[in-house]
Amino acid sequence: MYWNKTQLKYIINLYCINTSDYPTVFFMITFIYLINQMDNCIFCKIISKQVPSYIIDENEYVVAILAKDMECFGHTLIIPKNHFENVFDIDDNYLKEFILFTKNLAVKYKDKLWATGVNILNANWKAAQQSVPHLHFHLIPRLPGDNMDTWPKFEKYEWDHEIVLQKIREKIF
Amino acid sequence: MYWNKTQLKYIINLYCINTSDYPTVFFMITFIYLINQMDNCIFCKIISKQVPSYIIDENEYVVAILAKDMECFGHTLIIPKNHFENVFDIDDNYLKEFILFTKNLAVKYKDKLWATGVNILNANWKAAQQSVPHLHFHLIPRLPGDNMDTWPKFEKYEWDHEIVLQKIREKIF
Repeated sequence: MYWNKTQLKYIINLYCINTSDYPTVFFMITFIYLINQMDNCIFCKIISKQVPSYIIDENEYVVAILAKDMECFGHTLIIPKNHFENVFDIDDNYLKEFILFTKNLAVKYKDKLWATGVNILNANWKAAQQSVPHLHFHLIPRLPGDNMDTWPKFEKYEWDHEIVLQKIREKIF
Repeated sequence: MYWNKTQLKYIINLYCINTSDYPTVFFMITFIYLINQMDNCIFCKIISKQVPSYIIDENEYVVAILAKDMECFGHTLIIPKNHFENVFDIDDNYLKEFILFTKNLAVKYKDKLWATGVNILNANWKAAQQSVPHLHFHLIPRLPGDNMDTWPKFEKYEWDHEIVLQKIREKIF
């Protein structure tokens, strides 16, 4: 189901003309926005098999596919089947299923693919370089002699630990 | 408790002289090795307060501290209080507590520290660049204008998806 802007405006105008129930109008706009977002989500399309993908493993909650832009051998994306934008908005029970699946696949990569190590990488929101706004973990199996460097290059940072700790604690508590 | 090599050899020899129960001897060696490893673990020392650290938040299972080598403002390490070497060997229930704590701190960084995004990074085993052999997640709050690039630099990789998928699936199943 895809609602284009014209249809949206028509429905909302129709409702606004007939009522002054702005909270409901706001709710409707948000709801339709979210549905549209899911309908346009490439991972949702992969999960519903509208778009083909290279599925490594899946269960009721989670699917693991080969990344389209494979950065290395076995570069895997682990994706919850329900649409959550990122780690901030996945519900706790679903998150547990998600991490267990991730762990089990990592163990399989270690034991059966003979990976010499595994990296798990995740980005939340565009500013953190999240490419697709549907939660996913990157699973990077490390193989002998891969010579990869999966630790990002940070610039030198010279803040005082005491000051940073104080600044964080006074904000988050 | 720290058992040095001489003590270890003495105990094992004593047992071996008196019995031929090699499975138990093997178990004893492994057990003592693990205890020694925990005793020498810097994160275990931080958790038991033998070594000072900058604690951001903690609960019964998990502690979050500022990274000693802070790569950016608020570079946080999230560490289970029990000693697990990596994601491969943490038990499932503990892993759930670990990921929930991680999510909740990420949400706090978003809502209260006004982070514009959050990265979660994790390495398992030395080949994956795990620095301390005690499971930990790096939580990287992104701040406006930080100009950081947290995605690793991979070399160009040109394998065929179909072949990679086949190779992985035939090994892990």
